[in-house]
Amino acid sequence: MNPEVRPAPRFAWPVRVYYEDTDTGGVVYYANYLKFFERARTEWLRSFGLNQDKLAREEGLIFVVRRALLDFVRPARLDDLLEITVEPLKLAHVYVDLAQEARCGAQVVARVQIRVACLAQRSFKPVPLPQSLRESITT
Amino acid sequence: MNPEVRPAPRFAWPVRVYYEDTDTGGVVYYANYLKFFERARTEWLRSFGLNQDKLAREEGLIFVVRRALLDFVRPARLDDLLEITVEPLKLAHVYVDLAQEARCGAQVVARVQIRVACLAQRSFKPVPLPQSLRESITT
Amino acid sequence: MNPEVRPAPRFAWPVRVYYEDTDTGGVVYYANYLKFFERARTEWLRSFGLNQDKLAREEGLIFVVRRALLDFVRPARLDDLLEITVEPLKLAHVYVDLAQEARCGAQVVARVQIRVACLAQRSFKPVPLPQSLRESITT
Amino acid sequence: MNPEVRPAPRFAWPVRVYYEDTDTGGVVYYANYLKFFERARTEWLRSFGLNQDKLAREEGLIFVVRRALLDFVRPARLDDLLEITVEPLKLAHVYVDLAQEARCGAQVVARVQIRVACLAQRSFKPVPLPQSLRESITT
Repeated sequence: MNPEVRPAPRFAWPVRVYYEDTDTGGVVYYANYLKFFERARTEWLRSFGLNQDKLAREEGLIFVVRRALLDFVRPARLDDLLEITVEPLKLAHVYVDLAQEARCGAQVVARVQIRVACLAQRSFKPVPLPQSLRESITT
Repeated sequence: MNPEVRPAPRFAWPVRVYYEDTDTGGVVYYANYLKFFERARTEWLRSFGLNQDKLAREEGLIFVVRRALLDFVRPARLDDLLEITVEPLKLAHVYVDLAQEARCGAQVVARVQIRVACLAQRSFKPVPLPQSLRESITT
Repeated sequence: MNPEVRPAPRFAWPVRVYYEDTDTGGVVYYANYLKFFERARTEWLRSFGLNQDKLAREEGLIFVVRRALLDFVRPARLDDLLEITVEPLKLAHVYVDLAQEARCGAQVVARVQIRVACLAQRSFKPVPLPQSLRESITT
Repeated sequence: MNPEVRPAPRFAWPVRVYYEDTDTGGVVYYANYLKFFERARTEWLRSFGLNQDKLAREEGLIFVVRRALLDFVRPARLDDLLEITVEPLKLAHVYVDLAQEARCGAQVVARVQIRVACLAQRSFKPVPLPQSLRESITT
């Protein structure tokens, strides 16, 4: 872990599993974990004042996932109440690496290591992360 | 409105609009309102003790939408916080008709009139609605 | 049916059911029919030279669904090969009404009557339908 | 690459980008690449006679993704026609590793390295891959 990253309490966001999230195998469809992980990242950003819609409209910045290493550990099912965590791993100039987990009770259901880059909306070129994000995840 | 249906306060459930819900037109993709409406129905059922996963496993019953009349009134956008309502309109032996709205603040974004039938999971044949549902929406 | 609408052969588009389309009830999730219906409408527009991406970029026009009356007739399942039809019902100045069906072999699985309006992308105000669409569906 | 894997021509499957696949950033939503990759895997299995619905019903076997390393290289947009490839990398007793790419013309849009395991549907325990899959991807 990058030394400048503060050992903050992990951010967690609840996600209920609905019919829309499941497939005919009786479990959560694998692509939908990427939706759950993004909901938690969005709420994590909002928790320190970053609203992505405003960021796009006012500053022309968007966050884009560059890379994701996903592990599907065990199945989740209809009506399960999952907890999705967000933990910063490394802060670079134009991206941040995060670790996220989906848990059901004490058990890890899925996890991801994910690289989120900041881009200019028009050019899709990398730009420095917003200062508020930088300050919020470093001491 | 069917006389046996109690003029209960409308049930409402909050839904936040995330990237997954939007399309390149900059608004919520039209099919996703059916997901929002189902989330609210699921929580409305849960509010009087009906858990759909349990109902399927223990009693072999599922709820299936037979018919939906959807109106898309105005667009919703990223980060909007919608309120999804559920209101029973008519209670029949094997189905219930519901009115639902998606609101953003004071404005209606979309609405639906929907018929939900109760089926035996194996045969997909209509069966009477569970008594607890019947009691919960009638006086 | 509106007299100016030509009794053209119905347009049909094949859609295979994948895991992503199903739910834990073992059938196609109800909201996903709206995706199937839109794929067929997009290919129907493309069949007479209308590309929606180009229409938005070059003329600032988008098509938006205003109203949909959906009937879910029987379940479709994993690996089913559906045929989605498009049939114009009524051509107005700023919208067109269509009938669409999802069929699996000879059986109707779902059907919709749908009103698609043409809007200016910026203002979301109704504008006349493109001339090429008008010509393509009238004699 | 595992020596027993035959240098077969890569399997490719076309995927058109529709409104349902995009988000308000104007590009394909990141989770949807996992849907595209699965459609191509399903058709790749079908190309040598493996029907997943039949496999589940007749032999109680399902394929489950255990791990995926995703790279999002450049954005794809509405109406793009993507080509999704499948290439076996390693064949083990109870899983297969695959490389997949999403290409738009000559350009790679996204790629994944993915581990697909074969499980007994009831127990979710690993079982040997079906013989027909084994034969199809080895010399």
